[in-house]
Amino acid sequence: MDTSGLQQSLASLSRQALREQIRANTYTGSTSGLVPGYLQANLVMLPADWATDFLLFCQKNPVACPLIGVTEPGQPFLDEIGAAIDISRDVPEYHVFHDGQFTAKVPDLEVYWRDDLVIFVLGCSFSFEEALIQSGLTVRNIEQQRNVSMYDTQITCQPAGRFHGNMVVSMRPFTPKDAIRAIQITSRYPKAHGAPVHFGDPAAIGIQDINTPDYGEAVDIHADEVPVFWACGVTPQNVLRQSKPPICITHAPGKMLITDVLNNALAVL
Amino acid sequence: MDTSGLQQSLASLSRQALREQIRANTYTGSTSGLVPGYLQANLVMLPADWATDFLLFCQKNPVACPLIGVTEPGQPFLDEIGAAIDISRDVPEYHVFHDGQFTAKVPDLEVYWRDDLVIFVLGCSFSFEEALIQSGLTVRNIEQQRNVSMYDTQITCQPAGRFHGNMVVSMRPFTPKDAIRAIQITSRYPKAHGAPVHFGDPAAIGIQDINTPDYGEAVDIHADEVPVFWACGVTPQNVLRQSKPPICITHAPGKMLITDVLNNALAVL
Repeated sequence: MDTSGLQQSLASLSRQALREQIRANTYTGSTSGLVPGYLQANLVMLPADWATDFLLFCQKNPVACPLIGVTEPGQPFLDEIGAAIDISRDVPEYHVFHDGQFTAKVPDLEVYWRDDLVIFVLGCSFSFEEALIQSGLTVRNIEQQRNVSMYDTQITCQPAGRFHGNMVVSMRPFTPKDAIRAIQITSRYPKAHGAPVHFGDPAAIGIQDINTPDYGEAVDIHADEVPVFWACGVTPQNVLRQSKPPICITHAPGKMLITDVLNNALAVL
Repeated sequence: MDTSGLQQSLASLSRQALREQIRANTYTGSTSGLVPGYLQANLVMLPADWATDFLLFCQKNPVACPLIGVTEPGQPFLDEIGAAIDISRDVPEYHVFHDGQFTAKVPDLEVYWRDDLVIFVLGCSFSFEEALIQSGLTVRNIEQQRNVSMYDTQITCQPAGRFHGNMVVSMRPFTPKDAIRAIQITSRYPKAHGAPVHFGDPAAIGIQDINTPDYGEAVDIHADEVPVFWACGVTPQNVLRQSKPPICITHAPGKMLITDVLNNALAVL
């Protein structure tokens, strides 16, 4: 099967047409590059009695966990991201965790949905990658058609209730000149992790080997480039695995919720 | 004489009181840190028949030569920087160049004023240094009470008419985290050179030894810091020396024109 051809034809699908395919479980793949212009979101679902702690964790760690919205318990709908979106069905693939352990991947939540589940919708760096490319910068992971490089760090998140852990970062290499421009552009998107948290020496934030990411894939770093690090939406998943709630459901990495929110509507300036 | 005591008492002087002392030639010192909140300006004065080339040079090189205003030939006044300011008298010290060679330093332009002189008023990094400090960052040259470190580079300015040459940069060291914040803050001040043009490896822009600035003084760079480089108002002086106009008058470095323009009024965001 010619995957790139499939991606190309998918890219031209309207948001509504793609969502219908996802809801019918006929499309269960990555959403990278699909429906340009619209916010794709990270998801975290927790029982209501864990939700207050996680809400506070997001409030204390807004760079790693930029909160777009929170549902009422048992309600898989959230008007502000699109009234027609059923968050329990409109993601290509969900990951289910019990007591912090991965237990299942499923195309919808028919089996796992609970009346006490609260859904946290979090911003994603896909939004600012689009803005970087529109400003003429090269995003290496997109150029090389690889998943972005992600790393565990020694940057400590602010703990909240039962949630604590270190920040996960994504990395994109740029020349210093382009890095300065990337800092300006991503600063406009606090709901997509905003400005970088670090650049240059990986060891300064506890990364031992830049060529061996903890998540995603390695990308080439040219001789005149420095690695630039942004807070990453894998941070909450990392924290949730350590905190071991009885059940937790997330999107599968790279298979995001496509919302009705325009990326440009997230920009603060 | 206790210079720091003098600076302290001067810092409390009103803009008007300091300007009177400067106009009376009783104060001929540095203006660094005086009259906080107000734009201090770089000055370049040229005969009218050289002014069009220099105006075009500024237009082509807005980061190094951020133009605040231009006078009519023979008029040392410019309403938009303060109607009461006589630019030929209200600078502590002027430098005079003939055919690109430094020939005199004088406290006013009584002897050198000509009816064909056009004055270019250019922004200065003093404006963004104040904004950096107000955001809690440490500006090393101010902390160490030294003139900022400045360097010739191999970054080529866009030539215009008889004017051509390389950019001069100023350098301030920061940790990567603070450098990211400094990029955000200085981006708000395009009329004070704006965002940095480079950070990190000095050799990448043609600086051989970071510890030996071409102008100003060296400052300490801590182990966890990187040098961050901004376009510098010495660039036009560098270019003018090479282009050898019959006469050119500038302010003496560090002895700037204090204007009635609020630094905050320069911020674009």
